Amino acid sequence: MGTGNRDLPAGFTAAELAHRFALQLKGDGAAVVAGVATLANAGPDRLSFLSNPRYRAQLADSQAAAVVMRAQDSEGYAGTALLAADPYVAFAKIAALFDPPPPLRPGVHASAVVDPSARVDPQAQVDAFCSIGARAQIGAGAVIGPGCVIGDDCEVGEGCVLVARVTLVRRVRLGRRVLVHPGAVLGADGFGLAMDAGHWIKVPQQGGVVIGDDCEIGANTTIDRGAIEDTVLGEDVRLDNQIQIGHNVRIGAHTAMAGCAAVAGSATIGSYCLVGGAAGILGHLEVCDRVMITAMSLVTHSIREPGEYSSGTPLMANREWRRNAARFRQLDTLARRVNALGKTPRDEED
Amino acid sequence: MGTGNRDLPAGFTAAELAHRFALQLKGDGAAVVAGVATLANAGPDRLSFLSNPRYRAQLADSQAAAVVMRAQDSEGYAGTALLAADPYVAFAKIAALFDPPPPLRPGVHASAVVDPSARVDPQAQVDAFCSIGARAQIGAGAVIGPGCVIGDDCEVGEGCVLVARVTLVRRVRLGRRVLVHPGAVLGADGFGLAMDAGHWIKVPQQGGVVIGDDCEIGANTTIDRGAIEDTVLGEDVRLDNQIQIGHNVRIGAHTAMAGCAAVAGSATIGSYCLVGGAAGILGHLEVCDRVMITAMSLVTHSIREPGEYSSGTPLMANREWRRNAARFRQLDTLARRVNALGKTPRDEED
Amino acid sequence: MGTGNRDLPAGFTAAELAHRFALQLKGDGAAVVAGVATLANAGPDRLSFLSNPRYRAQLADSQAAAVVMRAQDSEGYAGTALLAADPYVAFAKIAALFDPPPPLRPGVHASAVVDPSARVDPQAQVDAFCSIGARAQIGAGAVIGPGCVIGDDCEVGEGCVLVARVTLVRRVRLGRRVLVHPGAVLGADGFGLAMDAGHWIKVPQQGGVVIGDDCEIGANTTIDRGAIEDTVLGEDVRLDNQIQIGHNVRIGAHTAMAGCAAVAGSATIGSYCLVGGAAGILGHLEVCDRVMITAMSLVTHSIREPGEYSSGTPLMANREWRRNAARFRQLDTLARRVNALGKTPRDEED
Repeated sequence: MGTGNRDLPAGFTAAELAHRFALQLKGDGAAVVAGVATLANAGPDRLSFLSNPRYRAQLADSQAAAVVMRAQDSEGYAGTALLAADPYVAFAKIAALFDPPPPLRPGVHASAVVDPSARVDPQAQVDAFCSIGARAQIGAGAVIGPGCVIGDDCEVGEGCVLVARVTLVRRVRLGRRVLVHPGAVLGADGFGLAMDAGHWIKVPQQGGVVIGDDCEIGANTTIDRGAIEDTVLGEDVRLDNQIQIGHNVRIGAHTAMAGCAAVAGSATIGSYCLVGGAAGILGHLEVCDRVMITAMSLVTHSIREPGEYSSGTPLMANREWRRNAARFRQLDTLARRVNALGKTPRDEED
Repeated sequence: MGTGNRDLPAGFTAAELAHRFALQLKGDGAAVVAGVATLANAGPDRLSFLSNPRYRAQLADSQAAAVVMRAQDSEGYAGTALLAADPYVAFAKIAALFDPPPPLRPGVHASAVVDPSARVDPQAQVDAFCSIGARAQIGAGAVIGPGCVIGDDCEVGEGCVLVARVTLVRRVRLGRRVLVHPGAVLGADGFGLAMDAGHWIKVPQQGGVVIGDDCEIGANTTIDRGAIEDTVLGEDVRLDNQIQIGHNVRIGAHTAMAGCAAVAGSATIGSYCLVGGAAGILGHLEVCDRVMITAMSLVTHSIREPGEYSSGTPLMANREWRRNAARFRQLDTLARRVNALGKTPRDEED
Repeated sequence: MGTGNRDLPAGFTAAELAHRFALQLKGDGAAVVAGVATLANAGPDRLSFLSNPRYRAQLADSQAAAVVMRAQDSEGYAGTALLAADPYVAFAKIAALFDPPPPLRPGVHASAVVDPSARVDPQAQVDAFCSIGARAQIGAGAVIGPGCVIGDDCEVGEGCVLVARVTLVRRVRLGRRVLVHPGAVLGADGFGLAMDAGHWIKVPQQGGVVIGDDCEIGANTTIDRGAIEDTVLGEDVRLDNQIQIGHNVRIGAHTAMAGCAAVAGSATIGSYCLVGGAAGILGHLEVCDRVMITAMSLVTHSIREPGEYSSGTPLMANREWRRNAARFRQLDTLARRVNALGKTPRDEED
C-alpha cells in the first residue's frame, strides 16, 4: 500500500498545499494530508486525485482528506478539493513531497574500486562494489548505487542517479539529473557485422553514447554506442524498461517510449514522440516530431507527418482468428477476384 | 549432456522409484537408474520418459534402464516401464532426485555489505558482493546469491533463492520459496509521467511489489513497483525470462507467462492464465481466469470469457507476404466493394 | 564523435593501408590516416568508406584523407581512394587498427572471490567483484570484467571477453574468443513446468549451455540451460542485445539475430540464418540453413526451404489502420461472400 515509508514528513494542510502549488482550495483548508492514495483506498489522512473520468464514481465514497480535481468535477462534491487545470500534474508535484529522495551520502564506499585517473566529485556518492574506470568523471550530487560499473572515459553529470547495477561501458556521457534504473547497459558495442568469406567479422564500434539532461532510462534497457559517431538522446527523453536502442540512433527531446520498444541502428526519431510498448522501428528511418506509435506496431518506413500510426491485427478468439488468418494468405487472390468482378468502389456508401 | 553432476546420488532401482512415487512397475524392478536422459540418448543407467506421442517411435530403440509412460503406451514395450497417468509430472518429480539443490551454507559472506538495521536470519545464506539495505529482512533458508542488491524495506521469505545479481529495489516483499533468476529487477520505479508545460515530470512511485509463495521469476525479467498501491503476483505465478510487468499490475495465482511477454500498467490478469512468448497486454485491462494468449498476440481489450485468444498474421514467404500485406491496406475498400455487389453472405457453404 | 581515444596509434599512410589489406590505391599514397569517420563528418586525417549507394552524394564534399570504395564508385573521384570488392569488409578491417583492445592485465583482482577448486589460467584477467565457482575453468587470455559471476562447472575458453556483469549460471561452456556483453545471463534454468493437481511443479533443468568459438552475445541477452541435454550455439553465431534463447535450442554456425529476437525451447535453427529484430520462433520447430526472417515476424511452423519469410501487416495512419483492421475480423466472411459470387480467380490480370 506504499504506506510503510518511515521518512514521511509529518503532513501538510490542504491550505498549505493549495498555496504551495497555486491551486484553488474548496472545502476544509485545515484538513491534514500525510500521504497519497487512490480514491478507493484513501484513508482520512490521504490526498487523492481524479483525472480519468472512469474513476468519477469513486469520488463520492472516498475517505480522502482532500482530492485534486478539475473545477467542473468538484460540483456537488462535499469534501475538500484542490482544483487544478491538470489534476494529474498537480498530484504528481504534491506526491513528490511525500517521496523525498534518500539523503545524499557523499563519499566513496570502502569497497569501491576507482581508477586513479578518474575524477569523483567530493559531493558524489559511490556505493559498495562499484568499479570506476580510467578517466571517468562523476559530478557533484551524483549517486552511483551498489554494483555499478562505470567504464573508461565515461562522464556522469551533476545530480544523476544510477540506482544499482548499472553499466556504462565506454565513452558514455550522461547530462545532468539523468536517472538510470538497475540493469541498464549503456555503451555496449553496436551490432556491426560484415560477412567475409563465410565468417562474420566485427565492425569496430568506436563511438559513444550521449544522454541529455533529465532523461530517465528504465531497468534492463540497453543503449548501444555508435559505430563511428555517437548514439544520442536529447534532453528529457524517457525510456521505460527493457528497451533496446541500436547504435547511432538519435532521439529528440521529450520523446517517451514504453517498455520493450526497440529502435534499430541509425534511425532518427523526432521530439515529443510517443512510442508504445514493444513497438519496433527499423534502422536508417526517420520519424518526425510528434509521432505516436501504438503498442507492438512496426515502423517500416520513414514518417514525415505528425500523427498516430499502427500496424497489426485485432485480438480474437483463437478459433475465429484461425479462420481469418488463413484468409490473409489468400488476400491478394481475393482482391484480384473482386477486381475481376468489374465493380468500381462505391466509397460513398457504408 | 547434463551428465557431469558430481553431486549425484548413487542411484535408485526401478522398484524404489515405483514405490516412492506410487507408480505401477512393469518389467525389471532391479534395474538401476542413476540419472535422466532423453529416449534417444539414454544410456543403460538412465531413466527416460514418453509423454509427447511424437517421440513414440524412439521408444523401441531406447537403451534407457526404465521409461516413465502411460499404461496404454507400454503395451508391447519389452523394457522396464513406470506407469503414470501424467508421465511428464512423474518424470519431473523423479528427475528432481538427481538434481538436489546445492547444500545451504548459512551465514553472510565477508565481502557482503549489510545495513545494521537489516535482519538476516542465521539460517540464511548471503553470498559475496551482496548489498542489503536498511530494514531489509532475509528469512531462514533463503539464499542470496553473489552480487544481489536488496534495497531498503525489502523482505525475502523463507526458502527463497535469488540465484545471482538479482535486484530488489525498494519495498519488495517475496513470499516463501520464491525463485528469482539472475538479472531480474523487482521494484524499480513504474513508468509514470505527466506532461507539464512541454517537459515531463515524474509521477512519484511509492508503492511496492508483493510476490506470492512459490513464484518463479526469470532471468532479466522486470517487475515495477506500484505508483501508489502495490504490484502483486499471486502464489505460484511463473514468469519466464525478459518479461516486463508494469506498475500496479495484478496477476492471479498459477498463471504462467513465456519469455518476453509484457504487461502494461494497472492491468489485472486472472488465475491459471497462460501467456505466450512476446505477447503483450495493454494497460488498465482485465483478463479473467483461464485465458490463454498465443505467442506475440496483443491484448487490446478486456477478456471476460475463458479460452484461447490470438492476433497477428501467418508466416509466409516474403514475396507472397508482400502481395498480401499490400492488400491489407485496401481491406476496407475491398469490403465495401464486395458489399456493393449486393450479395448476402452464404455462410452455409464452404 | 569517437575521437577521444587516447590509445590511438600515430597513423598510417594510404599506401601502408593499401599494402596491408591488399587494396588498390588510387590517388595520394602519402595521405595520412589517424582514425575513421563518416563521409559527412570526416576531417582531413580520417578514413571513410562508401558502401551503401544512398551515401554516394556525400562523396564529393567529404574531407576524408582517403575513402574505401568499389572501383566503379571511384570514377570521377578526385581524392584518395582504396578500392575494395567489399568496401564495408575492408573498412571494418582497417578500422580495427584504430580500436585496439585494451591491453590484457593478467591476474586476479584482490577483491575477486575464486573457489579453491576453480582453475584460472595465469594469463587470464579476472577483474573486481567477480565470483568464480567450484570447478570453473578460465582459459589463457580470457578477460572476466568487473562484477561477473561464473558458476560451478563453467568453462571460459581462451581469449574470451566477458565485458562486465555477465552471469554464467552453471555448466556453461564457452569456446574460444567468445565476446559477451554486460548483463547477459547464460545457463539460467529453462522454463520447464508441469501442472500437478492445480499447482505447477518445476521440471528440473540439468543440461548446460555450449557456445562455439567466435560467438558474440549481446547485452542483457539470456540463453537458458537445457532441460536434459544442452542448449547449443555453433561457431560464429552473433546475437544482438536482449535476445531470449530457450532451453535445448540449437543454432547453427554463422547465424545472426538482431535485438529482441526470441527462440522458444527445443527449436533448431540452421546455419547462415538471419533473424530480424524482435522476431519470434516457436518451440520444437526446425528452420533450415540460410533462412531470413524479417523483423517482428513470428515463425509458427518449420521452414524447410531457404529464403526470406515474414508475417505482420504494414504500418498505416491509425485512422486508416482501424478501418482495415476491423475488416480483418470479417475476412473469412468476406472471402465466403466472394466465393459465393461464383467467379474463378483470373490471376493473369493485374
